[in-house]
Amino acid sequence: MLVVPLIERKRDGGALTAEEWSALIAAYTAGQIPDYQVAALLMAVVFRGLERTELAALTDAMIASGDRLTFDGWSVPRIDKHSTGGVGDKVSLVLAPLVASCGVAVPMMSGRGLGHTGGTLDKLEAIPGFRTALTLAQAKAQVQKIGCVLIGQTPEIAPADRRLYALRDVTGTVEAIPLIAASIMSKKLAEGLTGLVLDVKHGSGAFLPATDTALELAKTMIALGEDRGCPTVALLTAMDRPLGRACGNALETEEAILSLRGEGPEDLMEVTYALGVEMLLAARVEKSPVKARQRLESALSSGLAAEKLEQVIEAQGGNPKVVEDASVMPQAQAVEVYAAPETGVVLRVEARVIGRAVVAMGGGRTTVEDAVDPSVGFVITVKPGDKVLQGEPIASVFAKDATGVKLAFDALARAIEIGGRLEERPLPLVSHRVTREGVEVLTKPAAKPKKR
Amino acid sequence: MLVVPLIERKRDGGALTAEEWSALIAAYTAGQIPDYQVAALLMAVVFRGLERTELAALTDAMIASGDRLTFDGWSVPRIDKHSTGGVGDKVSLVLAPLVASCGVAVPMMSGRGLGHTGGTLDKLEAIPGFRTALTLAQAKAQVQKIGCVLIGQTPEIAPADRRLYALRDVTGTVEAIPLIAASIMSKKLAEGLTGLVLDVKHGSGAFLPATDTALELAKTMIALGEDRGCPTVALLTAMDRPLGRACGNALETEEAILSLRGEGPEDLMEVTYALGVEMLLAARVEKSPVKARQRLESALSSGLAAEKLEQVIEAQGGNPKVVEDASVMPQAQAVEVYAAPETGVVLRVEARVIGRAVVAMGGGRTTVEDAVDPSVGFVITVKPGDKVLQGEPIASVFAKDATGVKLAFDALARAIEIGGRLEERPLPLVSHRVTREGVEVLTKPAAKPKKR
Repeated sequence: MLVVPLIERKRDGGALTAEEWSALIAAYTAGQIPDYQVAALLMAVVFRGLERTELAALTDAMIASGDRLTFDGWSVPRIDKHSTGGVGDKVSLVLAPLVASCGVAVPMMSGRGLGHTGGTLDKLEAIPGFRTALTLAQAKAQVQKIGCVLIGQTPEIAPADRRLYALRDVTGTVEAIPLIAASIMSKKLAEGLTGLVLDVKHGSGAFLPATDTALELAKTMIALGEDRGCPTVALLTAMDRPLGRACGNALETEEAILSLRGEGPEDLMEVTYALGVEMLLAARVEKSPVKARQRLESALSSGLAAEKLEQVIEAQGGNPKVVEDASVMPQAQAVEVYAAPETGVVLRVEARVIGRAVVAMGGGRTTVEDAVDPSVGFVITVKPGDKVLQGEPIASVFAKDATGVKLAFDALARAIEIGGRLEERPLPLVSHRVTREGVEVLTKPAAKPKKR
Repeated sequence: MLVVPLIERKRDGGALTAEEWSALIAAYTAGQIPDYQVAALLMAVVFRGLERTELAALTDAMIASGDRLTFDGWSVPRIDKHSTGGVGDKVSLVLAPLVASCGVAVPMMSGRGLGHTGGTLDKLEAIPGFRTALTLAQAKAQVQKIGCVLIGQTPEIAPADRRLYALRDVTGTVEAIPLIAASIMSKKLAEGLTGLVLDVKHGSGAFLPATDTALELAKTMIALGEDRGCPTVALLTAMDRPLGRACGNALETEEAILSLRGEGPEDLMEVTYALGVEMLLAARVEKSPVKARQRLESALSSGLAAEKLEQVIEAQGGNPKVVEDASVMPQAQAVEVYAAPETGVVLRVEARVIGRAVVAMGGGRTTVEDAVDPSVGFVITVKPGDKVLQGEPIASVFAKDATGVKLAFDALARAIEIGGRLEERPLPLVSHRVTREGVEVLTKPAAKPKKR
């Protein structure tokens, strides 16, 4: 096919037809179009964007490049949640078993750590024996048996996305909303869902820090989902500070398990419940947010949710004892307490600095091939607005050795700013609800600074 | 080197340093950077442009990728002319020997036909035996001996331009003024010139039809030339209709020879003299435009200019008899006269349609490998504004066979519009003079419609 006229049309502000996108992606996946032509086209898309019909056609072509989960004739609602990524974001590990224990199937396909953010797969693999690489057939069987599976993107799903993502990564074309939306949605829409809930992060620690940009991404993904018959809703949640207390794979898995046993940090639970309510509503197992919240809370307090996680771990080869005893996971060799260097109010806990430090300590990867040390990370017990006294313990670091401890302490000193008065309010934990109908600003104020 | 941060910076509106451009071009030419990264960067440049310092650095890096002509210690002024390309544009063939016969060295490196426009090399090669592929050493020796050489871009000159141009051609990144300017100037500035005159075409038959865009290109090239110590001046000339009467390689060479013998068409001579005046002024062999014009006219009428062409042809292996007898060049098998289909005024002669027809008749190339039939083409004897009677001969077509004649007649019917009254004035032949000081609009009106 003649690619140059398509590149020129997009460059000059025109649109490609659905047939053109379809043929282009098929030919590219088949190795019939050189990378340099697609690279130029992608850069033109960065500047010109994609029309709604183009984005739909691109996404469809990416889905069509591979297989998909199908549940023909199976009447159980299937809802997934996707997060755009953050620091300390272990929501999936709590939410998936919690929602599944309410009678909603959760076929969740997750990713690995990327840049300064963690990945659900890495957290799960902190559990000895846990396998995230299942075939589509295995995943389907598990969903139908126990209502939940937690896996990685299989090679059969959207291979075009794999190829395009690798190219974007080396050509400076990652940061384009339509391309991000197509990449995420091509995988989610291949899961055979009856509904999808998106957790779009904003704030300094998010991939797209600006609220406007996050909203635009949310709207774009919702339009894509709705147009393809998958009811989609998004919540904008705060990523100007880490979520919960733990940052690091095993530490976050431990915190997720504690949360399922009713001992979760307030902010993590608020975000988890907000997303869970949307999932139950999307599944139509509850009709009102109040009822949905009650159902989630009782699934948690009854122990059903924790039991569901145990089932999932067992089904995927992991050691289910982890639910009772987190010490079956790898333990850090060097654990140190970090004390507040001065008295005052916590002004800021920079998620990006913490996330980068976890990577530097060995808990994330800088190239795809890197092995991850699941034991390292932070537990940070203060939030912006908290008052602290000099010398008071405000964090623990879990490192491989003394070098790691030093690195972690340096990061905490940079990430945690202490001052006289909170000038900039932290973002509300859940600030916007976006549906096909529009954007609803949630009026509930941010968690008040608590006395300590 | 890390290329992604450079792509991202350009994409986001920033600038690369001179060192970065230099390292990038060197590494790309050495095959150390993949095409897809440079393709993405070039597309970002299409949208963001280049700052003056960036453009200078890119051009310098392209020059530095190869060899250059050097004339150390040789005091004869060396001036070249470059045209951005048109239909019927045989100016170089008249101008180079004409200016050389006035004591100015003209080391002219030209191109082949591209798209709908012809190329000087193809026109020269219509002369049996003429060799355009000389080494730099041969070219230098010829310039110093007879004051003029007419060659193609040698493999030693700006290889980075060659590689970049090939990539731009297949990635939709040709139409970017800084990239066009860098490509042209990297070759011209490698010729060891003491001055450069640019013929920037505008109008519907030009590569960049809009006057504003043509002016921008002129200014960009002038800044580049002046910054690198090569005084540069540009004239904007009309390409809303073919220049002269002949379009097609051998036909144009014949018209150029006739012009050197004093029988050139008025418009061709006006453009040639205007550029020649600039070349003599740039060479400082004359101080006033009037004197320069007189000198050119007497070089022509004395036969010195025609003699110079004969010397060049002989030096480059061509049959010098062509100067006396054009029939030594390949002759078309099918020659037919085209008559005006109706009585009226010629409103338009669409250069682009004529240029494309020459290519379709075999007189140009659609891929680099195509062989060119030098004999085919048109001689069109009317200009916009001319009155014509139905049945009156207004053009001759020179084709390979009856199919070619039909194709040519169809093109003439589309290209030559006849109507009641000239509503849109043709562009003035030479409309703007651009120097480092600014743009001067030339007030001399377009050639008046002449009575016939």
